[in-house]
Amino acid sequence: MESATLLISSPDRRGLVAAITDFIFRRNGNILHLDQHVDSEHNTFFMRVQWDLTGFEIAKDKIAPAFAPLAEQYQMDWRVHFSDERQRMAIFVSKEDHCLYDMLSRWQSGEWCVDIPLIISNHPTLEHIAKKFDIPFHQFTITKENKSEQERAQLDLLKVHQIDLVVLARYMQIITPNFIAQYPNRIINIHHSFLPAFPGAKPYHQAYERGVKIIGATSHYVTAELDAGPIIEQDVTRVDHRDSVSEMIRKGKDLEKTVLSRAIWAHLGNRVLVYQNKTVVFK
Amino acid sequence: MESATLLISSPDRRGLVAAITDFIFRRNGNILHLDQHVDSEHNTFFMRVQWDLTGFEIAKDKIAPAFAPLAEQYQMDWRVHFSDERQRMAIFVSKEDHCLYDMLSRWQSGEWCVDIPLIISNHPTLEHIAKKFDIPFHQFTITKENKSEQERAQLDLLKVHQIDLVVLARYMQIITPNFIAQYPNRIINIHHSFLPAFPGAKPYHQAYERGVKIIGATSHYVTAELDAGPIIEQDVTRVDHRDSVSEMIRKGKDLEKTVLSRAIWAHLGNRVLVYQNKTVVFK
Amino acid sequence: MESATLLISSPDRRGLVAAITDFIFRRNGNILHLDQHVDSEHNTFFMRVQWDLTGFEIAKDKIAPAFAPLAEQYQMDWRVHFSDERQRMAIFVSKEDHCLYDMLSRWQSGEWCVDIPLIISNHPTLEHIAKKFDIPFHQFTITKENKSEQERAQLDLLKVHQIDLVVLARYMQIITPNFIAQYPNRIINIHHSFLPAFPGAKPYHQAYERGVKIIGATSHYVTAELDAGPIIEQDVTRVDHRDSVSEMIRKGKDLEKTVLSRAIWAHLGNRVLVYQNKTVVFK
Amino acid sequence: MESATLLISSPDRRGLVAAITDFIFRRNGNILHLDQHVDSEHNTFFMRVQWDLTGFEIAKDKIAPAFAPLAEQYQMDWRVHFSDERQRMAIFVSKEDHCLYDMLSRWQSGEWCVDIPLIISNHPTLEHIAKKFDIPFHQFTITKENKSEQERAQLDLLKVHQIDLVVLARYMQIITPNFIAQYPNRIINIHHSFLPAFPGAKPYHQAYERGVKIIGATSHYVTAELDAGPIIEQDVTRVDHRDSVSEMIRKGKDLEKTVLSRAIWAHLGNRVLVYQNKTVVFK
Repeated sequence: MESATLLISSPDRRGLVAAITDFIFRRNGNILHLDQHVDSEHNTFFMRVQWDLTGFEIAKDKIAPAFAPLAEQYQMDWRVHFSDERQRMAIFVSKEDHCLYDMLSRWQSGEWCVDIPLIISNHPTLEHIAKKFDIPFHQFTITKENKSEQERAQLDLLKVHQIDLVVLARYMQIITPNFIAQYPNRIINIHHSFLPAFPGAKPYHQAYERGVKIIGATSHYVTAELDAGPIIEQDVTRVDHRDSVSEMIRKGKDLEKTVLSRAIWAHLGNRVLVYQNKTVVFK
Repeated sequence: MESATLLISSPDRRGLVAAITDFIFRRNGNILHLDQHVDSEHNTFFMRVQWDLTGFEIAKDKIAPAFAPLAEQYQMDWRVHFSDERQRMAIFVSKEDHCLYDMLSRWQSGEWCVDIPLIISNHPTLEHIAKKFDIPFHQFTITKENKSEQERAQLDLLKVHQIDLVVLARYMQIITPNFIAQYPNRIINIHHSFLPAFPGAKPYHQAYERGVKIIGATSHYVTAELDAGPIIEQDVTRVDHRDSVSEMIRKGKDLEKTVLSRAIWAHLGNRVLVYQNKTVVFK
Repeated sequence: MESATLLISSPDRRGLVAAITDFIFRRNGNILHLDQHVDSEHNTFFMRVQWDLTGFEIAKDKIAPAFAPLAEQYQMDWRVHFSDERQRMAIFVSKEDHCLYDMLSRWQSGEWCVDIPLIISNHPTLEHIAKKFDIPFHQFTITKENKSEQERAQLDLLKVHQIDLVVLARYMQIITPNFIAQYPNRIINIHHSFLPAFPGAKPYHQAYERGVKIIGATSHYVTAELDAGPIIEQDVTRVDHRDSVSEMIRKGKDLEKTVLSRAIWAHLGNRVLVYQNKTVVFK
Repeated sequence: MESATLLISSPDRRGLVAAITDFIFRRNGNILHLDQHVDSEHNTFFMRVQWDLTGFEIAKDKIAPAFAPLAEQYQMDWRVHFSDERQRMAIFVSKEDHCLYDMLSRWQSGEWCVDIPLIISNHPTLEHIAKKFDIPFHQFTITKENKSEQERAQLDLLKVHQIDLVVLARYMQIITPNFIAQYPNRIINIHHSFLPAFPGAKPYHQAYERGVKIIGATSHYVTAELDAGPIIEQDVTRVDHRDSVSEMIRKGKDLEKTVLSRAIWAHLGNRVLVYQNKTVVFK
């Protein structure tokens, strides 16, 4: 079964749901899932609606033009996706392998409907994993001097491969604002703390020093401000006085890969809307 | 602000959401929350929609008659609630006090918009708590011989007090099918295990014997089959080999009161729909 | 059954466990629980050992003098407690009632082996609860001008009542260093965030603004630095975009009372050792 | 640093901890970790003690004979392990790949100190993964007729490879009591429910039918009774009415691999003692 998904945000107004669902119904669409949210503080409306395209009266490429007038009338920010689209994802790594293994396993087992045309790294350490899974591995050694040049080369490569989504799977380099601007809300990072606690370097060491009883991981879209982008998903696990830093790192790895994979799942399923540096993640 | 909430289940058909939201929109209602679900296995549609009554063009008592034709057309099971309704709750207890304290604290602090005209018990043990909170306490000693007679008397009392919801807050008596039939999906029980594991008596002892690493609590609507009704809410906590039965009981009490209060919150907020011996709990 | 509990911290040295357990064994003590921890980073040894006093060869009041030479030899920081001791706890509150209700319920139901001779507040709001539970309620209105004077009066009252433990159950006043110095590691606070995230005022508002997917609560010993004392217990719960600030506050209350009560339970059970602004919490 | 670990269970008696720690101290051992537990119901004592072998006065191969007299005196069940031992693990799989990928990733990244000399399967499906990681893959097609013969061949292979631990990583065959008897408390299974709920086939379907709000996974030692062996680790995750069976399966996979890997970690670290069909899992 093929389906279409509309993602909408707009100023809140009476009749929005009626207008949108009527648009689908009049063309003989059967709604499979509908979720909406109103942020009454900012008077903003959000909606995700998915419908069965079987028997839908207009062709896929005609849906956007047909919807545009309604969207304009209600000042919507909107996009439409189709279930047979296949996104293209680039993975950036450094030396830590747990997230990479986890992502490639999910990809290869068919859990994720995504193509992974390349892996980029600033170190050669994980090339052997890329080889195991037959994915081209591109190494870009980064120094202070060559950073902007290397980023340009990376961006060129992403463009050649028509990348939709960049995932920083424990990539230990700060991406520059120029790079980020090319992929707004399309670069996902995993940070190894429950943000906003312990941003920056060595969060497990910070957690150990502070003596917290819970550690966490946070997946977020990358913005120009470090570790401050819209949070997509977080999770935590208990620690106690017996947990050394290395034990926290070990436990944290399981969190990191789970939290990152849930964020990617939500993104690939077109379930995430960003506003006010926050996310609406529809179930 | 006053609001109305429609709860609907029906066979799934095209145009349902459009028809319902159009009904609200045409009468100048502004939707605050809308959640829907389609069980594709049983081809059943569920919806909860809440809208602001400010400026709504028909009076509250005319909403049901106005909606009835649409409901009939789509074969809906439905009900409408208003935000100024105040449900009436009876609490049944035996000797354990933790759930009772927790419920009365929430009620008195105004967390729950509910009246509690009476507490019923088969033991005198907790009368002192009812007194603290100035709620009439009715004791019905139950024996094999007088059980059906006592239940009739209890039912009479519930009717006199126009009770909407019965909560069994660790009431250690089995309610008969006749009693249950008077309050279908309106009797909430808390069972001290993660059902379907450990139904019946002494679940913490069962959990201890089995050596589980997690214990739980389950709140469900009471049906004729013991501990087998539709589950509204569950939660769990970790235990290990150091936890004796009494330690499990102590930890479990916190679970029980939290899980029970969440189930009551969902019920009072008209968020629960029952079907196929399961629940849809709208957020 | 009566038991004794030794709490020890010392520089780590070979033979510590053997020496301590031998001390107990030679006087015919049967160890019920023993937990130890070595912080290898700081070369510090921690231990909690509890033994049955039935048949123990020396009287309770002779145990400390008998143990002192061994303690000196190994440079121990130590204390001994007995199972029949009953601590005396003062509760400080302001206007929020959920933690107070929860604590008094646990106390009254006998879950906690503690006396509560008084409740102190800077507002009259919760006096009715103190009355319900027959506990003297002392109101100290605090202004910038009278703060140090009022704190002195509070301290006098605590001394008169021989208070062992002060619990700040959502007390909305900052305690001065002078007050804190009188009860080192004996003032427990509940903060409504997963510290170190969102210290200070209005943590739920901060959490809402930041768009976190998890909120928490933290119970810690009060030190001179605000919300930075040794953490005893933390817990968290999930939120999402549908949770308004008021919904976070509602969900957070359940966290706060659970986390606070667990910290009090650990403290009353003589399970907490403080070092390096962190805690060892023995199970 | 090399260390030794003693695992002991015995009837509880006065002086046990003193005797054991004295044994270590007198030979100049420094205790790194000590954890003990007394099951007062069964009057049984459990202990795990790990000490630094640097400067220990007797050689590794002399430790067991030196300890034996003490063990006999106290009727101990005991074993001693050394930190440089490397266990040998066989993995049994069928068609599901998520646990296998996860285990091999941990092994290859060095998280687990273990050798994996072979993978056994009743299907060819996952051979490509074994190849990726360069591990011999042995297929044993199982029919009713050849089952005992094939099990004998499997056992022979395990013996040839001196296997210490067998992990059933979603192996969809029931192991016969004869096979189990060869590896008592050394066969770990992952079951995809929070046992004892939903034993046997299709637990996610059972969970969906029952309408539970939480699903789980359980790792346990395999005994002759199906899904009833000593539980090593469990974990759970929330589901709601929107989760179809396939969504539960997807979420459950993450649980299964995490729970299984934690159980393996505890087993490899010599942290698990079995008694009364339960486990003591030392931290």
